[in-house]
This record gives sequence, C-alpha cells and structure tokens, in this order.
Amino acid sequence: MPRSLAVHGLPSLVTAEALAGSSVAVIDVLRATTTICHALAAGAKCVIPCLEVADALAAAREFQRGEYVLGGERGGLAIEGFDLGNSPAEYTPQSVGGKTVIFTTTNGTVALQHARLARRVCVASFVNAAAVARELRDETDIHLLCAGTRDEITREDVLLAGLLVEQLLGPATWRVRAVHEPSPAGGYDVLLNDEALLALAAWRDSAANWLGLPAALLESKGGRNLERLGLASDIADAARRDRFDFVPTFDAATGRIIVP
Amino acid sequence: MPRSLAVHGLPSLVTAEALAGSSVAVIDVLRATTTICHALAAGAKCVIPCLEVADALAAAREFQRGEYVLGGERGGLAIEGFDLGNSPAEYTPQSVGGKTVIFTTTNGTVALQHARLARRVCVASFVNAAAVARELRDETDIHLLCAGTRDEITREDVLLAGLLVEQLLGPATWRVRAVHEPSPAGGYDVLLNDEALLALAAWRDSAANWLGLPAALLESKGGRNLERLGLASDIADAARRDRFDFVPTFDAATGRIIVP
Repeated sequence: MPRSLAVHGLPSLVTAEALAGSSVAVIDVLRATTTICHALAAGAKCVIPCLEVADALAAAREFQRGEYVLGGERGGLAIEGFDLGNSPAEYTPQSVGGKTVIFTTTNGTVALQHARLARRVCVASFVNAAAVARELRDETDIHLLCAGTRDEITREDVLLAGLLVEQLLGPATWRVRAVHEPSPAGGYDVLLNDEALLALAAWRDSAANWLGLPAALLESKGGRNLERLGLASDIADAARRDRFDFVPTFDAATGRIIVP
Repeated sequence: MPRSLAVHGLPSLVTAEALAGSSVAVIDVLRATTTICHALAAGAKCVIPCLEVADALAAAREFQRGEYVLGGERGGLAIEGFDLGNSPAEYTPQSVGGKTVIFTTTNGTVALQHARLARRVCVASFVNAAAVARELRDETDIHLLCAGTRDEITREDVLLAGLLVEQLLGPATWRVRAVHEPSPAGGYDVLLNDEALLALAAWRDSAANWLGLPAALLESKGGRNLERLGLASDIADAARRDRFDFVPTFDAATGRIIVP
C-alpha cells in the first residue's frame, strides 16, 4: 500500500523536482503509451522516445539499417519517411520484432522526460493497467503523470489514472475519507491529492454509466480526433484492458524504454 | 442551452484571451466566492477584490472611515489590522451592511482578474449554484473557471463545476456522448471540453456515493486545512446549496463585484 499517491492531469501541474525519487507511471492512452506496450509485446528490443522528428532521425544514425524502425506521429498522422505511424496495430512481430523502435510523439515524450528525476518510470496504458498496479503496489511514493494534449487535460488519461488509483488502494478505496493525513492511530493512511480523488470519482462514474471503455475513450477530444482521421480502431485497441502483463520501464540515463 | 461549455481546473489551464467575449463563472468554494456571496447577501454595497494586502490598504484610502470594512486571509487566517477574516459567517448585516467590503484573497482574485476580457463574470459557489446556472443557461459560450490553490487543482472547485455542468445541460446531460462537434443534423450539440466531462463525472460520483456535500468538501486538501485551523463550520456554510438566489457580477473596469 503506498503512503502517498498523486495524480497530475498534465506535466505542467507538478515540478520535475517533486517527482524526484518517487515511482512514476506515465500515461498517454491515445496513443503513445498504448503503442509502446504493443511494440514491446511484439518483440521490439526497446523503444527510444524522441521529442522532435530531427531527434529521431539523429538517433537512427546510431544504428545499422535493419536494426531499427522509425515510428510516431504529428497531428495524429504518420510522419513522411517514417516506417510506422502511431497506431498500436502497426507494431507487430513482422514490423518491429528484434528491432529498436525510434519513436516520436510530443505529449508522451514530454511526460517521460518530466519524470527524469524519478527512481522508476513505468509506461502505463489500459492494455497493461493491472500489471502496472501490481508493480507499483509496494512503492511508497507514487505519481500518476498524465501526458494530456498540448497542455490540455485529456479525459482518457485521467480515467486510466482513476482506475490505477482504484487498483492501488484496493480494499481501502472506501476509506478515502481519511486519506489526507497520518492517521491518529500512528499508522498511515494513504495521502491522496485532490486530483487523485477526482480521477477516482471520474473513473467510477464512467465505469458505472458508460457503454464500456471503448465508448468512454471515444468520448474525449482525442478519441473524436482519431475517429475523424479514420483511426477509430486504435481506440478499440487502446481500450483492451490487461491484454498485456508486463510493465515497460523508461531509463532516463539511456533514454530507452525496455521490459526489465 | 450553451453552444460550448468548458471547465478549467486552474486559471493557468486557459489563456485570458480564450475567455474574451464569453461568460465566465469564477469558482473558489473554500472560501472566497462563498464569502463574497455572504457579504452581498448581508447587504454589503459591493466587494472590491484585491490581490495583495497593500492593494487592499490602498483601496481603503479612497473611502471614509465607516464606509468600508477590510476582509480576507493569508494562509487561511485573518490579516492583522483587518476587520474580518474569510469566514462566510463573519459577513453579517451588522458587520458589512451598507458598506464596501475591500477583500483580499490570493486564488480567487487571480481567477477574477484572469477573466478580465470576458463579457460577463459571475461569482459562483454552492450557496448560489442554481442561480448561476439559471443566469448562464441562455449564454452561448460558457467557461467555468476554478481558482484552485497555489496552482493545484482543488476538489471542491471541480465538484461545483460538475454540478453547474449538470444543471446547465439539464435534460441533455445524458447526451454527453455527442457533445464534441456540430451535430450532423445541422443543429448544435453542446461542445464540452474534456475537463467538463471529468467534472460532471466527479460530481455525479460524489453526489451518489458520499455522505453529503459537507463531507465531500471536508474531503479535500482545502477542507482538511480549514478543519485543522478550527474553521470546520466554514465548510458547513460553504456546503449550504442554494441558500441565496442571486449572482454577484465582477466588473473588471471598476474592479467591483455587485449584485446587478
């Protein structure tokens, strides 16, 4: 059981210093963290997240042809000259097996870099949510860092944060009335920030009232954008809860995401 | 029915320019916007919100002794030399009737100033929520601007935003699946941002699951702080829904909040 658990709807809502030494789960449901899970599940050696297209092309020069693929998006669409876009289904054993994926998306990469001082940075999505919760459950100080989109909080990221809060608190979820302080008994309740309580409530309401996770993800600005771009099947892929049972980890020193 | 309805968990999550020409409800439940409602209900002539203590003292010099009272807080507590703190119950006909209230709180004042380009700025709290919803219902472009606390999103502000979303959408709330775009039929659904959907969900979950609004407000960082300061009765006052049936309005040109 964590001692403190905080949700941040955007990287700008927490300082890099406040994340120092903690365990961070980075969330970019549509689509970066979902796609990273797919790539590693398909047998990619690692994923190198890059902020700019130029950074990705520079990283590629470190590799021999055939050792890597270039993937990512701008404005939701594939980048000219790149091998793959940002759709999870593109990342198959045929396309990425045994290769390094050099990957550029803006929001997800900013969030990963923002967590550079953390002790541990996990890549979280609905497709590996239970594995992330299991991995983090024994950590003391946990931050769930949503990537958002261009400095706007996005609904799909906060919903996953809410699910993770629910899973991390487990049977103690009902005790959220007493989570802000060390308990008088001398033990500790979980210190949740207000955004964690809000995310939990948003997840519970959505879980109870919606037609299911795909419909909930469609009902976000990002989901609508994907639908408009003809990429609605990406939403279905992003909504497949616990399809994978591993937790990709980002090492800020090497700039690589691997499965430990 | 509004055409667009956006929630912002903090002033920093929307630019002042994006608010230009729109109708804005400023929310600082614990306690600035609640206390402003109490002051005007008690017969204060107007409230002048000031960012700094020095600004408040300068504003006071424009008035004769007996025409004004100084009110507000720093760190939750009354300011030395001021007449009143920031507890709603201090603002009575005896203390403020017929007088100008010169008022300084940090978060609420920042939010009011951030809305300076809006066509109309309403002061919203649980104590006048239904009146605010009624006043705004026919507006086209509505922003619900939460003050937060020192750049942290606060739960109580987002819950009120969620209640206002529910009341503004009315019977259309169930149609939130189709709110992101002009409807194909040529009419318009309501364009909600993701934060509006999240606030609505958080409000619904809280309304359904909690022991009531006072308990929900206590269960925020701000609520806990007030309890610690011995000001728990302020929470009960802030939770009295629709105690008042008027909407204070901030005029950025004069710097005054009045009941029109």
